[in-house]
Formats: sequence, structure tokens, C-alpha cells
Amino acid sequence: MRAVLMERGRLWLDDLPDPVPGPGEVLVRTLACGICGSDLHAAQHTEAFVSTSREAGGAFKLTSFEPVVLGHEFAAELLDYGPDCSRTVAPGTAVCALPVLLRQPPPAIGYSPGIPGGFAETMILSERLLRPIPGGLDPAQAAMTEPLAVARHAVNRAALSRDDAAVVIGCGPVGLAVITVLKASGFGPVVASDFSPLRRALAEQLGADVIVDAATEDPVASQSVRGRDGLTIFECVGVPGMLDRLCLSAPQNARIVVVGVCLQADQFRPLIAINKELTLSFVLGYSPQEFSETLTEIADGTLSVAPLITDQIALAEVPTAFEALAQPDASGKVIVEPGRA
Amino acid sequence: MRAVLMERGRLWLDDLPDPVPGPGEVLVRTLACGICGSDLHAAQHTEAFVSTSREAGGAFKLTSFEPVVLGHEFAAELLDYGPDCSRTVAPGTAVCALPVLLRQPPPAIGYSPGIPGGFAETMILSERLLRPIPGGLDPAQAAMTEPLAVARHAVNRAALSRDDAAVVIGCGPVGLAVITVLKASGFGPVVASDFSPLRRALAEQLGADVIVDAATEDPVASQSVRGRDGLTIFECVGVPGMLDRLCLSAPQNARIVVVGVCLQADQFRPLIAINKELTLSFVLGYSPQEFSETLTEIADGTLSVAPLITDQIALAEVPTAFEALAQPDASGKVIVEPGRA
Repeated sequence: MRAVLMERGRLWLDDLPDPVPGPGEVLVRTLACGICGSDLHAAQHTEAFVSTSREAGGAFKLTSFEPVVLGHEFAAELLDYGPDCSRTVAPGTAVCALPVLLRQPPPAIGYSPGIPGGFAETMILSERLLRPIPGGLDPAQAAMTEPLAVARHAVNRAALSRDDAAVVIGCGPVGLAVITVLKASGFGPVVASDFSPLRRALAEQLGADVIVDAATEDPVASQSVRGRDGLTIFECVGVPGMLDRLCLSAPQNARIVVVGVCLQADQFRPLIAINKELTLSFVLGYSPQEFSETLTEIADGTLSVAPLITDQIALAEVPTAFEALAQPDASGKVIVEPGRA
Repeated sequence: MRAVLMERGRLWLDDLPDPVPGPGEVLVRTLACGICGSDLHAAQHTEAFVSTSREAGGAFKLTSFEPVVLGHEFAAELLDYGPDCSRTVAPGTAVCALPVLLRQPPPAIGYSPGIPGGFAETMILSERLLRPIPGGLDPAQAAMTEPLAVARHAVNRAALSRDDAAVVIGCGPVGLAVITVLKASGFGPVVASDFSPLRRALAEQLGADVIVDAATEDPVASQSVRGRDGLTIFECVGVPGMLDRLCLSAPQNARIVVVGVCLQADQFRPLIAINKELTLSFVLGYSPQEFSETLTEIADGTLSVAPLITDQIALAEVPTAFEALAQPDASGKVIVEPGRA
């Protein structure tokens, strides 16, 4: 099969043997797979990604000396079964799945050498983690289940009350997904901030109530959030210095939900957070239930994800797309379609 | 009157005019006043304390170029009234008070040039903030109201559930106060950790269930907290690097309540907090109600504060005590008694 390999930041298209499903696993054809900010991090900062992830007890088996096929936001079509499958999902069925295999220890799909992620023509998945895609849903939209589940989880953990205002810092795919979930859940006002005109336009299209140009205005000081009892700030950028800046802008008692992944060590001044009694909640991932609910809500239109998808590309274009996304201001979500010529 | 002045870290005993109460204010004789970790910070790192506090919108009017009389954990005796007082508290009454004057803007007592704190023979207080000390309570114990209110507030904000375990990092006066409030509130097990044998002995005396020598054991890995559903870690040290270390030790979903004040910029690795979905709550101060409840609970014995007090000293000893507390392992709370010869 054709697959895009990554080793220490270098990406290239190559031919690999099709993976062989083990017990309880199935072989699938990849229909669509999104490029995630974490994929870019893993490519740009492989060593930091590996070492910090290990130290934190993370599940990623990525190393800096073996090539890996990235891609964990996927939709696929079931082709065949490995041994010991219950065969409840028929071949030809379109499926999503939680991006992990039920082995001991469970490897993360898209971050493990020898277990190809979604930037490849075929993959293996654990049968028990398959979620059939409701009829007729575009596979590119179904591939948005994973990032939207991340946003759903972040909003769930934030435990907003109905009177809270929300500020979303950064309108990349993560920030846009958070905006989508906040609005679909009836929260507001939602203030969205980014440097990029394209991303601000996407935020508006997805229903953000107030759009702020990060270059000229502090979204946390926006008129729409002043005087609100509760303010929750979703940090969806993940660069060093951002938390300190947000602590400085934040009003008394604000909660900052950290969704953006900053791989580097970061500096901040605790006294500022102390003086304002801020809360920082760090979030990651989602539960299987949050994943399933998200797929259902994308399929029934509760979560409108089509505007998030700005690019659909072939496997051969992945290396170039990773380069372009190093300056990400011109894109929303980029979806890779391995079947595309 | 005699008072201890502080300017940029230097402390000396001096003679000052008695302060004159303004409208709604009273003159009091200081009976007892505790030395707080923040007093040590203000002396050791005056410039950082001033600049970070300003940037954070804090109430401290301290500067690095005017002497100030520190001391905000006090018990006093009412001497006389300024103009426009309602005179509901009689002269001779022992009182505590929230350490602030009701002026516009309200200056913090003990951090404001021209408004002496408790390391002086007399002070002025706002009549409306006076809390008469219930009959017979030792003024040194009554002076513990302020630090215990800080601990009460931290425990309230932590919102522990009955099944949570609590770990207290650092058994200085703040950590010991948190242990006292946790045990008085029925929470446990409480694991307490410090490098100092004296402080570990105080923690045990105050009811901590498990005592850990920080030099040889990680309290967060203690058998008593493993496998608990919820774990709340009270950070009561406030030195750089501590938060990163706690994030690394903390189990999945732990909440870290930051009570210790770190004045310097601090470094940490967000990815570690993200991988474990940690929550960091920064807390400061207390409400007037928390202050009043704490005084009541000290007076009725619910909060047993006598063991916390390890030293009672005269004004002339304050400069030496500040020096000694730079290596704080040998003391619990040091109480200054301006009436002591």
C-alpha cells in the first residue's frame, strides 16, 4: 500500500506492506484522515514530543529513530477480519474508531511504529472500538469526529454555567471545534480571537458571537465579557508565553481551559494567578461515550463541521501540506483522502 | 510608639508617632501579630513583590523606596475612636480585624507606607471590620485567625468530596493551617510532607494521618493516596519548580491547590499537566464571612491552633527573627507581642 512515512520531521510517500490484523482486529481502507496540530508537533519537535510524553506517562510509542505513519482522525471502510472477530460489522461498512488498538499495552494509532495511522491506504483497527458511520455522512465530515470529540470533552470539563461567557483564543481547527461545540450546546456569548482573517471568518461562520483580531484587541477585555459573573477562556494555541499572557488579561476568578498543546517548557508568574484566584484546567482526549455522541451529532447535523474543512488532499500532497501548515493561517482543517489520485 | 520598620529587606526598631484614626477608624494597641511568609517575601524580594503585585492588580501599596511597618495577622485592644464612629465596640475590648482600611482605594494594613501594621505598638483599624474576640481567648491564638482564614478559604475552594485524599506539601504555618482546617472539617486521609523534623512533628500533632519526609519519599505516591478516586494536593511551599515537580508526581485528574505564594517567574511543562488532565487552582485571601467563622472556631476549640505557635517574641527581636526565618525549618508560627519587654 501507499503510505506517508515520518521520521524526525521528514515526510515522504512510500510503499509499505498492508498491515495484518491480529486477534479481534480488522483491516480497513482509509477514506479520510485529518491532519492534527499534534501531528505537526510530532514532526517539528519529535524529540521533545517523545521525551515529554514518556515522562508524563503518555501512550505514544513514537521514537525519534523509526519511521511512523501519522494520522489518528480517520474514517474508513471495513475490508476484512483478523482472527477471533465477532463480525458484527459487515465488510463495506464505513466506520470511525477510537485511535488505539486493544493490545497490552494499548498502542496509539498514528503514533506507533509498525501500526500505520490514517495517512496510508489501509489500517488495522480494533473491532470493539469501531463505530459505524450513520448512512450517507461524508467520510471527510466523519473524520472530524475525533477533533470534535476533543472539543466536546474540553467543554464538558469546563462545566460552564448558563450565565458564563466563553472566550476562545486561537481559531485553528481546535478553537473552531470548541466554538462549534459551545454554540451547539447553547452557550454564549462566545468571543473568538485569531490573527488570521481566514480563521476569523471561519469562526464567524461557525457562530461565534464576537470576533476579535488578536493583533489589535484583547478578547478577554471585550465588552461582551466584561461584567459577566463567570468567564471561561479556552486556550487553543499552545505556544509558550500564552498562559502567562492570559493570566495577566483574565478577570478575577476566571477559568482557563488549556486545550492547546504546548510541548516546550513554559514560563508564567504564579503570583498573578494567585492574585486573581484563577483556575487552570488541562484537558486531553475524550471518553468513548463522548466520541460516539460526537459522531451521532455530526451525522444528525447538531454539529455542523463542513465549514471547518478547507482542504481535501491526496497522500502525495501530505509532505507539502505539513510544510504549509507550519504557517497555518491560511487553512482550517486539512483532510487527507488516500483514495484520491 | 515603638515600631519595626522595613525598607528593601532591612528591618530596624524605631520610634514613630502614633497613627491618627480617620473617619470611621479606631486606634488600637497591638497585642499580638504573626510573621507571615508574605512578610518574609516582601522583605527578601521587595522589588519583585512590588512589580508583580502591581501588574496583577494587587492591593499592596508597598514601594521599594519608603519604609513600611509590616504585620497583618493581628489581635489588638481598642483604645480610642476617630470621628464618625458608631462606637458599638467599647474601649478595652480585644478585637481582630480584616487587615485593610475602608478608604478609597482600600489600603492593605501591613503593606502600606504611613499605615502601620502589627509590628508596632499601636495601629488604626476600620471600625466596621472589627471582630470582637470571644471572651478569654489568648490574643496570640486570636492572631492566628488571619492565616487560618487563608487555609479555610483554600479548603473551601478545593471543594473536596468526602472520598478525596489530601496531600499537603510543606508544613510551614500555611501547610499546618491547611492540615488543621482539613482535619477539623472531617477530611482525610491527610498526608503531610516536609523536610524539617520539627515541622513534621507539628503536622502529626495537628492530626495529619500520614507524615512523609520530603527528602526520602514522594508524598503523592504514598500508599494512603494510591487508588483514591480523587486527590487534592495543597501546594504550601511557593518556590520555583515546585508546580512542575507536582505535575510530574500527580496522578490522573488530580487537583493542585496553590496556596504557597511563588513570587518569581516559574517554569513548567504544560504537556505533563495535559496528559494527566490536572487542574491548578490558585487561591488567595478569604471572605469576611470566612474570617469571622475562623475566629469563632478558634475560640470554641474547633480549630486547635496552639500547637502551631512555636515562638512568642518582643518587637526588638523581629529583625533577628526575619533573618532566622530565612532558614525556616526550626519554627512554626512566630508571634510578635509588642507589649513584651
